[in-house]
Amino acid sequence: MPDEPPAKKGEFALIGRIRALTAGSQAPLPVPPGDDMAAIAADLDGPVLWSADMLMDGVDFRSSEHDWYAIGRKAMNVNLSDCAAMAARPRAALCAVALNQQLSMEAAERLHRGVSEAGSSCNCVLVGGDTNSWAAPTVIAISVAADLPGGRAPITRSGARPGDLLCLSGPVGGSILGRHMTFEPRVALAERIAQILRPTAMIDISDGLAQDLGHICEASGCGAMLDEEALAGLIHADARRLAERSGRRPLDHALHDGEDFELLVTLPADTDTAEIARLGLSSMGVMTAGHGVRMRSRGGIIEVAAGGWEHFR
Amino acid sequence: MPDEPPAKKGEFALIGRIRALTAGSQAPLPVPPGDDMAAIAADLDGPVLWSADMLMDGVDFRSSEHDWYAIGRKAMNVNLSDCAAMAARPRAALCAVALNQQLSMEAAERLHRGVSEAGSSCNCVLVGGDTNSWAAPTVIAISVAADLPGGRAPITRSGARPGDLLCLSGPVGGSILGRHMTFEPRVALAERIAQILRPTAMIDISDGLAQDLGHICEASGCGAMLDEEALAGLIHADARRLAERSGRRPLDHALHDGEDFELLVTLPADTDTAEIARLGLSSMGVMTAGHGVRMRSRGGIIEVAAGGWEHFR
Repeated sequence: MPDEPPAKKGEFALIGRIRALTAGSQAPLPVPPGDDMAAIAADLDGPVLWSADMLMDGVDFRSSEHDWYAIGRKAMNVNLSDCAAMAARPRAALCAVALNQQLSMEAAERLHRGVSEAGSSCNCVLVGGDTNSWAAPTVIAISVAADLPGGRAPITRSGARPGDLLCLSGPVGGSILGRHMTFEPRVALAERIAQILRPTAMIDISDGLAQDLGHICEASGCGAMLDEEALAGLIHADARRLAERSGRRPLDHALHDGEDFELLVTLPADTDTAEIARLGLSSMGVMTAGHGVRMRSRGGIIEVAAGGWEHFR
Repeated sequence: MPDEPPAKKGEFALIGRIRALTAGSQAPLPVPPGDDMAAIAADLDGPVLWSADMLMDGVDFRSSEHDWYAIGRKAMNVNLSDCAAMAARPRAALCAVALNQQLSMEAAERLHRGVSEAGSSCNCVLVGGDTNSWAAPTVIAISVAADLPGGRAPITRSGARPGDLLCLSGPVGGSILGRHMTFEPRVALAERIAQILRPTAMIDISDGLAQDLGHICEASGCGAMLDEEALAGLIHADARRLAERSGRRPLDHALHDGEDFELLVTLPADTDTAEIARLGLSSMGVMTAGHGVRMRSRGGIIEVAAGGWEHFR
């Protein structure tokens, strides 16, 4: 007989099993798990930063296709990627779920194991949550609290200046072929960028390179000029594979596909290029006066439409 | 023509309208709204406490029946009630939503106005979130961060001792007739309880009086003896109205209905009864040795089954 759905065993039983699952990984907290609120560790540096991301079955993952452990990992990792985007140090997480009532207890546990283990690998402790069940597809909402080691200022989207170098942490495009489920958030890299370089703005690529670069431009009040030749070296093999099916150019997938979760960083013009390379970053353009994203190609300068991946279409 | 669904206008347009809606109420923050993470005010007292609650259309509210403004208020207020349960001071909130794609822009705005205004009335600022749309029913996940004025310890569920008085902040039962949507979280009362009395444990009634009292018993390692005569004065008129339809006793509704969001408090036996009354609390039993919830009635002592409202059944 297959594992009974959690609905039959009750929410408290599942909560108990989830707690047992994560108990070993938890440092002592000011409030033990299971009270009305959870506590974030008291030794935080500076202001608490905070993100919330919601994943929906059929939109951000497909339970018919993806394993619940991988789904749990992604739900946590998109939040950790937000931390990376600000070079913040993840500390604690809450996980609220509305589980489809057909979900087995075993699947629900695998989901929470994915959430918990993805958090642990970035020292982010799952401290609590809210467990529900319903007839509709599963929804997972995770909230992560982070701090800034040494009281460092957060790296926002708004500090880029004309002349800054525009760098990317890895190749992009075609993540829908699988990497959108399996990416590793760039938390450790972001920390090194903040320590070693002087980043002026940073964002993680979730909506698509062109669109997320547009967010930096808008928040910073400047424009950006991509270099097509440099970008050609940052087109992921998945973008090329996808282009064969889609009939679009690999470059278009690199510019407009979402959920790569690489870091897009702007750096002062005088940054040592050897340092940039040592961190595994690749330069692929500059920030400019004006506004909007353009690209210098062999044929001249073209406007790059935002056109990333957006919900609501 | 009716208001267009947000799906047609795009997620960023809705986010812009939500931001405009809440901009006036916001104090300056270390990170301006719209970045990868939000910041909680830097002047927090002591450890940061943290809750997450998720509301689902058809389970916790019915969009066919309830106004989106009221739904937004409830989504925030269940979190603020968690703060009250620990006598914590709500400071900031994140709101993640998966909106049904048929929802109009106007309805989505009303929802967010409800969330924002319910927060504001307890000085809890909506600092960010995640806005999504899908084909399934609407889900709202709010996370609230709170602190403890003056570095006070949080009031947990685990401090009750045999002999403690058991008190309730108001009549309970039958909230499904409407109060589950319109209740006001007892944040200010909880603050006064913490300042004036010496509460040993506290919880808000969400699962039902018997079940939530059971949570205190379990966490505190003791039992509870309710006084039926005292409890008779704490049966809400809605419990009586509902009993006429349900065929159950009003007392059963008072004991087992969920979502009253009144506070259940335990106080040392020597607490001044005049002080208790002055705060609007009513004594209705004592904590005992042993475990489980019992009730002293004219017919003798009976066991009270947990049997509150639980998801997954």
